[in-house]
Amino acid sequence: MLMPTNKKNEKYTPPFGQMETFLPFWYKIVPLVIYFIEFMSLLVVGSIAYDTIETPTARRENVLGGSAPFFAYAAGFFCPVQVVGVVGADWLPEYTEMFRKQGVDTTGIEIVPDGKTFRWSGKYHENMNDRDTLETQLNVLGTFKPKLPENYRRSQFVFLGNDAPATGLAVLDQLQGADLVVADTMNLWINTTRADLDALLKRIDGLVINDSEAKMLTSESNVVTAARKVLTMGPKFVIVKKGEHGAMFVSEYETYVVPAYPMENVVDPTGAGDSFAGGLMGYIASQRGNLDGETIKNALVYGTIAASFGIEGFSFDRYKEISRTDIDTRREAFRKMTSF
Amino acid sequence: MLMPTNKKNEKYTPPFGQMETFLPFWYKIVPLVIYFIEFMSLLVVGSIAYDTIETPTARRENVLGGSAPFFAYAAGFFCPVQVVGVVGADWLPEYTEMFRKQGVDTTGIEIVPDGKTFRWSGKYHENMNDRDTLETQLNVLGTFKPKLPENYRRSQFVFLGNDAPATGLAVLDQLQGADLVVADTMNLWINTTRADLDALLKRIDGLVINDSEAKMLTSESNVVTAARKVLTMGPKFVIVKKGEHGAMFVSEYETYVVPAYPMENVVDPTGAGDSFAGGLMGYIASQRGNLDGETIKNALVYGTIAASFGIEGFSFDRYKEISRTDIDTRREAFRKMTSF
Repeated sequence: MLMPTNKKNEKYTPPFGQMETFLPFWYKIVPLVIYFIEFMSLLVVGSIAYDTIETPTARRENVLGGSAPFFAYAAGFFCPVQVVGVVGADWLPEYTEMFRKQGVDTTGIEIVPDGKTFRWSGKYHENMNDRDTLETQLNVLGTFKPKLPENYRRSQFVFLGNDAPATGLAVLDQLQGADLVVADTMNLWINTTRADLDALLKRIDGLVINDSEAKMLTSESNVVTAARKVLTMGPKFVIVKKGEHGAMFVSEYETYVVPAYPMENVVDPTGAGDSFAGGLMGYIASQRGNLDGETIKNALVYGTIAASFGIEGFSFDRYKEISRTDIDTRREAFRKMTSF
Repeated sequence: MLMPTNKKNEKYTPPFGQMETFLPFWYKIVPLVIYFIEFMSLLVVGSIAYDTIETPTARRENVLGGSAPFFAYAAGFFCPVQVVGVVGADWLPEYTEMFRKQGVDTTGIEIVPDGKTFRWSGKYHENMNDRDTLETQLNVLGTFKPKLPENYRRSQFVFLGNDAPATGLAVLDQLQGADLVVADTMNLWINTTRADLDALLKRIDGLVINDSEAKMLTSESNVVTAARKVLTMGPKFVIVKKGEHGAMFVSEYETYVVPAYPMENVVDPTGAGDSFAGGLMGYIASQRGNLDGETIKNALVYGTIAASFGIEGFSFDRYKEISRTDIDTRREAFRKMTSF
């Protein structure tokens, strides 16, 4: 961008009349833009992992995974994203660069110089839905205490990936009153740290949860009843993820359902739930947190579409090939398949 | 209806001028109406059963069930229906009356005077999706040879419930070229009468099938791939039923998906798949067999809504309380939950 200054061009007339000290015309805009980017940013706190994945047809070792990366990349299609997480000395600068290109701020990722990044290894069954965890090495994640950079604390939209509930609570204590806090959780925390989880549920606006885990959390066998019961535990809304069967949003007066995008080419479902949450929260943040019915349905759909691309490749392979335009094209195809 | 005749009223002037022999003005209309009712009728051939059902909270003995009754009642909300099936001397006239009120012609139901109606007994698990068959007594169904009444043979829309494929083939041989023939099938026929099933598949337009059975039929683990493979076996389209997860329509160039209607109050899921098929085919018949995208999506939705009412009560308990208006009201609520 060419900067209009008196030095470079003596004849230049500033647009708002002659001034003694001429400042670039955008001098007031820049801080405002920075303020709004922070204000509208979506903060995610979650695990960052190196995954080793085996499917019936292929195997990949130590590829990037974890709830925060998948969430952040998917959300990055819709709004600026800030990530808080922890990695070891084995963190690769190429990942920082990949996220920067996607509009994801990674200054909140703590690098432990003498540590190793969290590792997870799993094997998918023939149906590509069920999987067995083969190995988990917590490494630096085991002692992770999240510390939000100063400029992250004003975030209005916050997602707590499925870390220990205590981590989520520690994040909430550092925030300056977010507009919308949504958390994910999992069977491990339901079974082992239930008191923390109950405390967290009272402090969040929405819960994203698998259907089987919603049933486990509430001891209900019907998924709608389970979702309604979660509402009595604190959250104002619940989003139930049903994997290849879609997702459901339940609040006191509203229910929205969306099927999954029909897929034949499932390469690696790892991170699909986090990508779904990323697309969903990213779209809501891009609509400034508006939560009317149309926005919620579209958020469910964008989450679905983001996840559908993610699982077409290992790790971030497929994501790196696509843009927001591809997401919108598939969204329109999906609308034709489903809306009546 | 008051009949205008010269005898009753000497001063009556017929609307189309004086005639020597005055015939009622509708004398040409009646056969035309009869012709069109037959022409637009939806024919269903399937099992008729007395079910004994156990759920976690209740039990019913010898209530009406079977693929043909559930299909016919659901379809009856949309178009005239003709039923072909077989029952024993234990058939109750109240069922004939119930169907008559719903616009279902039961003259094609053969009553075997010295026989007993087919009986099925099953027990549902806590989740109300899985069930165990406790007992099956074929009775009159074991030797059933379908014979279509003369006025059934002109039916343009035909549904073959999940009887033995040989029964379906025998029905097709008696038809005078239907416009749209759709069949259901099940694991039993896939495993035991595969040759007949393959022959049937080549003679039908569409197949309605459970997701697990679609996978079994094609030896594929992905449901979309399985549906596509069914298309190579004969049918021009496949409708995959996924129970509480909705349904999917797949043809060579089209895919439509619809989630299930979110339900908390599932009393008895028996017959849900047949009710779904009934609502679906009934709507298509009411649209004179039009198979454009909007009609197909609406057919999937009407099938879903019909089934959602059916499972709110045992047997036909809930159906008997509702009308087409209730179906359309719930359809609109469902549209608001899903369409974006």
